[in-house]
Amino acid sequence: MFLNYQISDMKKFTVETFLFLMIGLSFHAQSLKSPDGKFEMDFQLKQGVPYYNLKYNGKTVVEDSRLGLRLFNVTGTIPDITKPENATFDLNNGFTKTDEKRNAKNETWQPILGEKKSYVNHYNELAVALNQTATDRNIIVKFRLFNDGLGFRYEFPQQKNLNYFTIREEDSEFDFPTDMKTWWIVGDYDSQEYPYQTTKISEIPSKWEQAFDKHSSQTLIQNAVQSPLMLKKEGKEPLYINVAEAAVLDYPASNLEVDPQNFKFKTHLTPDRQGAKGYIQTPSATPWRTIIVAPKAETVLDSKMLFNLNEPTKYKDTSYIHPTKYMGVWWEMIIGKSQWAYGEPKTNIHIGKTDYSTIKPNGKHAANNTKVKEYIDFAAENGFDGLLIEGWNIGWEDWINHSKEFVFDFITPYPDFDIKMLNEYAHSKGIKLIMHHETSGSATNYERWADKAFQLMNKYGYDAVKTGYVGDIIPRGEHHYSQWMINHYYRIAEKANEYKIMINSHESVRPGGESRTYPNWVSAEAARGTEHEAFLGNNPDHQTILPFTRWIGGSMDYTPGIFQTKLDYYFPGDKRFVKTTLAKQLALYVVMYMPVQMAADLPENYKKHMDAFQFIKDVAADWDDTKILSAEPGDYIITARKAKGTENWFVGGITDENKRDYTVDFSFLNKGKKYEATIYEDGKDADYINNPQSYNIYKKEITSKSKINFKMARSGGFAVTIKPLD
Amino acid sequence: MFLNYQISDMKKFTVETFLFLMIGLSFHAQSLKSPDGKFEMDFQLKQGVPYYNLKYNGKTVVEDSRLGLRLFNVTGTIPDITKPENATFDLNNGFTKTDEKRNAKNETWQPILGEKKSYVNHYNELAVALNQTATDRNIIVKFRLFNDGLGFRYEFPQQKNLNYFTIREEDSEFDFPTDMKTWWIVGDYDSQEYPYQTTKISEIPSKWEQAFDKHSSQTLIQNAVQSPLMLKKEGKEPLYINVAEAAVLDYPASNLEVDPQNFKFKTHLTPDRQGAKGYIQTPSATPWRTIIVAPKAETVLDSKMLFNLNEPTKYKDTSYIHPTKYMGVWWEMIIGKSQWAYGEPKTNIHIGKTDYSTIKPNGKHAANNTKVKEYIDFAAENGFDGLLIEGWNIGWEDWINHSKEFVFDFITPYPDFDIKMLNEYAHSKGIKLIMHHETSGSATNYERWADKAFQLMNKYGYDAVKTGYVGDIIPRGEHHYSQWMINHYYRIAEKANEYKIMINSHESVRPGGESRTYPNWVSAEAARGTEHEAFLGNNPDHQTILPFTRWIGGSMDYTPGIFQTKLDYYFPGDKRFVKTTLAKQLALYVVMYMPVQMAADLPENYKKHMDAFQFIKDVAADWDDTKILSAEPGDYIITARKAKGTENWFVGGITDENKRDYTVDFSFLNKGKKYEATIYEDGKDADYINNPQSYNIYKKEITSKSKINFKMARSGGFAVTIKPLD
Repeated sequence: MFLNYQISDMKKFTVETFLFLMIGLSFHAQSLKSPDGKFEMDFQLKQGVPYYNLKYNGKTVVEDSRLGLRLFNVTGTIPDITKPENATFDLNNGFTKTDEKRNAKNETWQPILGEKKSYVNHYNELAVALNQTATDRNIIVKFRLFNDGLGFRYEFPQQKNLNYFTIREEDSEFDFPTDMKTWWIVGDYDSQEYPYQTTKISEIPSKWEQAFDKHSSQTLIQNAVQSPLMLKKEGKEPLYINVAEAAVLDYPASNLEVDPQNFKFKTHLTPDRQGAKGYIQTPSATPWRTIIVAPKAETVLDSKMLFNLNEPTKYKDTSYIHPTKYMGVWWEMIIGKSQWAYGEPKTNIHIGKTDYSTIKPNGKHAANNTKVKEYIDFAAENGFDGLLIEGWNIGWEDWINHSKEFVFDFITPYPDFDIKMLNEYAHSKGIKLIMHHETSGSATNYERWADKAFQLMNKYGYDAVKTGYVGDIIPRGEHHYSQWMINHYYRIAEKANEYKIMINSHESVRPGGESRTYPNWVSAEAARGTEHEAFLGNNPDHQTILPFTRWIGGSMDYTPGIFQTKLDYYFPGDKRFVKTTLAKQLALYVVMYMPVQMAADLPENYKKHMDAFQFIKDVAADWDDTKILSAEPGDYIITARKAKGTENWFVGGITDENKRDYTVDFSFLNKGKKYEATIYEDGKDADYINNPQSYNIYKKEITSKSKINFKMARSGGFAVTIKPLD
Repeated sequence: MFLNYQISDMKKFTVETFLFLMIGLSFHAQSLKSPDGKFEMDFQLKQGVPYYNLKYNGKTVVEDSRLGLRLFNVTGTIPDITKPENATFDLNNGFTKTDEKRNAKNETWQPILGEKKSYVNHYNELAVALNQTATDRNIIVKFRLFNDGLGFRYEFPQQKNLNYFTIREEDSEFDFPTDMKTWWIVGDYDSQEYPYQTTKISEIPSKWEQAFDKHSSQTLIQNAVQSPLMLKKEGKEPLYINVAEAAVLDYPASNLEVDPQNFKFKTHLTPDRQGAKGYIQTPSATPWRTIIVAPKAETVLDSKMLFNLNEPTKYKDTSYIHPTKYMGVWWEMIIGKSQWAYGEPKTNIHIGKTDYSTIKPNGKHAANNTKVKEYIDFAAENGFDGLLIEGWNIGWEDWINHSKEFVFDFITPYPDFDIKMLNEYAHSKGIKLIMHHETSGSATNYERWADKAFQLMNKYGYDAVKTGYVGDIIPRGEHHYSQWMINHYYRIAEKANEYKIMINSHESVRPGGESRTYPNWVSAEAARGTEHEAFLGNNPDHQTILPFTRWIGGSMDYTPGIFQTKLDYYFPGDKRFVKTTLAKQLALYVVMYMPVQMAADLPENYKKHMDAFQFIKDVAADWDDTKILSAEPGDYIITARKAKGTENWFVGGITDENKRDYTVDFSFLNKGKKYEATIYEDGKDADYINNPQSYNIYKKEITSKSKINFKMARSGGFAVTIKPLD
């Protein structure tokens, strides 16, 4: 069976690799099995070089893949490494095994906000201690094998000969035996907001050059793709594979370089301007490299591996962290109907010096008292918790593309934004305003003002902030995902915790389950969200891929809920449109896990569809249970979720550019109990291009024995509210 | 006369330049004269390119020298400038003159701390407005001509086509007609602590490679020298010339590139890691380029031009700023007798995590309660104001060379340093402890902790801090003198002012008169100070050059007062020694203007020479008047100063490696008044190598008619205290 598989599936199988395997075994490879016995992994040293592999049900998922890091031989200023005296001593060869420790855990823990009431963390662990003889340096390679895949990382104990070092590159390899289908976005140090490509591994280089558009800050990595990466081994016995990273702390985020001939990927860390990819002080550990593997796509969506690989929070008080449903003075600026800035565009602003009473208003400033009160009224009438207001603070006239460090102070409102009055008005109606801190990438400036900014929030009763990092980073030469910026995001999260403030960050790094440790970082953008529908657009399959990639490590602030999908409504002749039906917009609230959940459209549009809007009003944002009913990346996702502390269920289904039927089997409901289902589905003539606003709504009594067939239009969907009839 | 001078002195004079001059004149050069009429400068456009020149007494001091800046054509991330699409539009050509404004000022102002009671600011001003036709951008070149030389700068008004730009280089030229003697240190972006070289301009490149030693952070600039630069045109009509810069704010500090064939220098700004030399938002102005010119060296030392070119302070309260005489727990660490660190060297410290109760003490930690109390006792007994203690806070075990960002927290004392007790003890004896904030170059970390650090100082009654920037800068890739760091120093100064704290910075940028605007930045190191005597040593002429260079823009914390000059006293066989006599050490307190004045040696050494120590106890640190009696850079300086608010005078004289006689004429004293002079002079057998501690002390009654001849030993000197006998 084993050899059969090798011969039939492995293009690269040769006598040499067979002999290598034999030699490897003779070196006493360390083996580890998952708790359910289905996974097995081996670690071995081949002539001092560390390798691992991974099998599922006896079949190779990852072939022998190299492990290790390359270093600069000095810390601090990076030397000219072409000079012999700057030769490095890498941590990727010359090792002998000195020890091996095994461990196991089977625990259940409760996320503060989550998709289920509790998550299971069940793994077997192997820690291999290695000594590099020539330098007498010790590292540990630690593996955790779960029932849904493998995590591994490098650990650097405090020791005589390894106290400080600087990383040139981490070369953790993922060597797959066969070409596979993959869903990817281009590698980049500064942007994740790219459209997904669906190709074979071997096709990535040829498609790479056409796979990106222009962003406000981007630093592309040729022939690299981003982590998390989704793959599928097609065929009779399909395997769904997700390669990602967890617990990316005090370390840069990684991309994956592609070797298209060998179907191999390797880590490619985000550098700083000096080319350094991490300044390390021992004791220390890298992030976990993760490989989720399952025969069913649904299992990948269900995996909590990345969260399990993070540490429990040390926060003493998490009572202030709560799910949030919010509206925002936002979409109207995104589409160009109004503006963030108060003054004429491109007015030259010096924060702290410019006298705004002398600035000519542009007449399109959205965050004004009158408009904000209207939004408050509508949000309050419809049961929302929060209202985001962007463009409330001075500086937006020239906030971008100038490498301007002192771009915002985060504390001074525009003349037409009465911060005290508006907060009091909102609170009187049960709404909390949501703060907005756009940094324009000037992280040093934000750190300087963060205390004052959070103090202002405490003063007026804000408990959540949307942060933004649009544009090139300051410190200049740092990247959005370099180590310094990773540390910045967590510094801000920790400081926000001191002030009992929740963070929803945009243009920040993609999460790797760190919300377990930093639970006040409640959501993030870190991918191509709804706003891109008003730029170059998202593909109809976009939302069926994101949960397999961006969502694997934490929730996304996708900002769905656009009912007026065609923008020619605002601007006659405008070709832009949101590439979904209205019913699909509703379904996104269930398919996409969002504890911070926005209804992004304008009140005027919701007012025209109050019947459909009812779903957004009803849908929960925090959950006791989640069932992935059916899913295929790039095609469709059908999800059922049980609202926190209730017997209410919500079901959402979405499809890609193809029409699709799906029959929901309600057997997940309590047996013998009756429920009222309110169904929101595409109208018969619905179509994301020709008739996006066509939908049907009807109610139906259902039980756990019920089955309902839903017909989804092209880029359509359906949503169901289920409440017990007792 | 004019033509004679040209022909006899100008090596480069040709028919072409003569014609050019004629053409220049035909373009109606703008001329400006100094208030006393001795200086004349011309501005002219030659085919759209701006030039200036400078004459003194009708003779050319600076030939036609180009002005202008080169730019990057985008702000933010710096593009590949080799690509045609990134071609730049420099601000150095294509100009037409659109306006010309003249102005004049004659004011007297009072420095908060200074060498005289008041400084005279007297100049004529010419502001030439230029328009670059092709881009419709406007700049102003502003000239101020004083009776001691020229200052000029570029101003960028706010305007339609010039709001933000990024500087590639400022190319302000200083084209001298002849080869000259010059006193210089090698150009560097990160260190100023080099030994001075004395060569012709034309010899700089050949001497450059041997002109530096290794520093903890250094980024040398081949064939560049540092500003301020001292030059001398030798001959029958000598001229002393100092090229420097003033008001270096929101802009990098500059070096000077050498063109040895043409005796020309041009500005070379300090870049950031991207190669950018200033991110500018209009309205803005560059620093002033300054050229002090005088027939006498004494006039250069007397010049206050750099201070005059800075703005008056905007601080509302400067009452907390005071001159300080201090001792320090410092020299014993510098020489290696004790240590900053509490634990064993190279212990791996994680601030906030490491438990110091588990760290093994190294037994050599100087900043301990017992020792600090001994220093307090001695300082108090001898009338000092302050005591600096370095190594009081945790983190010194591994503070350097690791590019470690969180290296210090500035608030946590070592276990053996009782901050509360020691401050109370000090205050009970009339001593204020002086805080020490070594940043290890980690400026981002210091900014993060500055508020807490200053709050701690307020809590315990510290009102002054010595800051330090040893090592490579974080943000990584920034330099000690790049724009970001310049802004950092002033951010810290402004924040310190909020807490009523004075700053004495080390390894910071050399000053350019900015203390007029930021008077709480009371002193700085920013050159090779006494500490280098314990490293590779300072040359005997070092102290005779520093006042002509480093001191031109502000006071230096030179930390003199070493009585035990030979270090074999501590370590038998140690070859290191301070290369002056003891008497010269005393003279430095007068020759070097130091409102923050250290007596750097150990109490045990002062106790052996209490008669000589009496001069340090008596000497003032703030002055009503200063007379430079005689000076020649690299040879000698004789200075008399009148102590603030008294009739006491102090005289100091120093010489280089040569013995030298000097007769002080006391005619600066009030006529008809009798004074008691206490004279501290080299002993007859004194010699900086063979007998540095030989000195004589005697008293003498003197009047304004007195003259006393002083014999200075090799690297010797003399000091005089003069008190009225009423």
